Amino acid sequence: MTDVRIRLDLAYDGSAFHGWAAQPGLRTVQGEVEAAIATVLRLDSPAPLTCAGRTDAGVHARGQVAHVDLDGVDPETLARRLQRFLPDDVTLVACSPAPPGFDARFSATERRYVYRLRDTPGGDPLTRGFVVAHRSSLDVAAMAAAAEHLVGEHDFASFCKQREGATTIRTLLELRPERLPDGLVATTVRADAFCHSMVRSLMGALVAVGEGRYEAAWAGQILAATERDPRVTVMPAHGLVLEEVVYPPDDQLAARAAEARNVRTAPE
Amino acid sequence: MTDVRIRLDLAYDGSAFHGWAAQPGLRTVQGEVEAAIATVLRLDSPAPLTCAGRTDAGVHARGQVAHVDLDGVDPETLARRLQRFLPDDVTLVACSPAPPGFDARFSATERRYVYRLRDTPGGDPLTRGFVVAHRSSLDVAAMAAAAEHLVGEHDFASFCKQREGATTIRTLLELRPERLPDGLVATTVRADAFCHSMVRSLMGALVAVGEGRYEAAWAGQILAATERDPRVTVMPAHGLVLEEVVYPPDDQLAARAAEARNVRTAPE
Repeated sequence: MTDVRIRLDLAYDGSAFHGWAAQPGLRTVQGEVEAAIATVLRLDSPAPLTCAGRTDAGVHARGQVAHVDLDGVDPETLARRLQRFLPDDVTLVACSPAPPGFDARFSATERRYVYRLRDTPGGDPLTRGFVVAHRSSLDVAAMAAAAEHLVGEHDFASFCKQREGATTIRTLLELRPERLPDGLVATTVRADAFCHSMVRSLMGALVAVGEGRYEAAWAGQILAATERDPRVTVMPAHGLVLEEVVYPPDDQLAARAAEARNVRTAPE
Repeated sequence: MTDVRIRLDLAYDGSAFHGWAAQPGLRTVQGEVEAAIATVLRLDSPAPLTCAGRTDAGVHARGQVAHVDLDGVDPETLARRLQRFLPDDVTLVACSPAPPGFDARFSATERRYVYRLRDTPGGDPLTRGFVVAHRSSLDVAAMAAAAEHLVGEHDFASFCKQREGATTIRTLLELRPERLPDGLVATTVRADAFCHSMVRSLMGALVAVGEGRYEAAWAGQILAATERDPRVTVMPAHGLVLEEVVYPPDDQLAARAAEARNVRTAPE
């Protein structure tokens, strides 16, 4: 029996999930998808899924990527069965044989998230599940100025839940708040990887500046301190969507995975 | 005591409502808003609301307009209290004194709806509450060609649930399907007014053409027959959003209302 590695592209509404990672007795995305695979393939025990971005409780995804190793399974057949079996709030966007060396977590070179806020009264009830209603109006130019102090390769310990032995050095490729034509404030956040609660903490710093409570340079001071600061709020989960995971060309997948395994030991 | 007419601009997620119109024992938008007003103003019995578009069960609104006559109430105070008291799925967008002659229903010159479909696999779970997943791919150009046979002033009896004594003559100002950059098929529908289930029946005809089941001209034949045809499906409610209600300048509100009262007797 030879294992086949399958790449799964998933989208989910995180509202009714306790996050990605399987936890006994709680409804999680990993738990639901593993259970669905086990059911449609009649496995004795679930085959473990590995994902690119272990989203927290309430965080959504449009572009989550995971892999699973299965015994001689045809991806098309699996896709057809899974699509019928997954719950309403999870969608299988694609299901394909993974190229050699592919690891959903460690081969990824980049994760892109978008955080959405509405700072005008009279919000839109249709998008309330993934847009955070903010009480006061935000100065987006000030938020963008604060973001400039954070982009680059840094120790993001000030914005991470510390874990024993895990590095908190990351490369923040983009942190770009913008006001959309419909009035929303959407912030694009890209990095090689993120540590726990990092995006929502970065947003907490930007929002504090956007409210006028601190100057833009304050964000840089928080970063330099390399320890968590109570003035930085972790923003609500439901405004956050994992939009995309980027992988290198196929011939670099294995090398990238080996490299990332060496430098990081904490969950993304 | 002098009655003051208040204009309420409302948005709602129709998912958990049995439509706009109050019905005993059912959760409706009208029922919830009337109850909230009665509570915050401590009224003995609810003051009746009149709205521009009596949306069906499951239909959403971002731009619903209603009026209510109340004894000497300050709109700002009412707004502040209502905002705190309305349920999560209804938003008070604005609350203002209505200009003289204003009638939310009869003064309106135009209602604009948008119907949203996704015809690609791997839908977006975050928008599943207001975007209908369609199994087969749609030819938007063919839908647009069909729409040309329907725009204008016609007897839309073929697309209306008949009601005794009510005219089904309407002016369809716009019926424009387009494919958005994100792949959605969004159809804008504007008319002076709509009869019951008219937008969803028009969409049923467009979708039948978009699927390649009929030529574009078939839509015109259905219209000309002036009676309901089983080949025209009433599309699902949750794809439909009342986006906007248009009123004339203040000095024409009363005249417009008098005129509309004369020609129409059925709900919009």
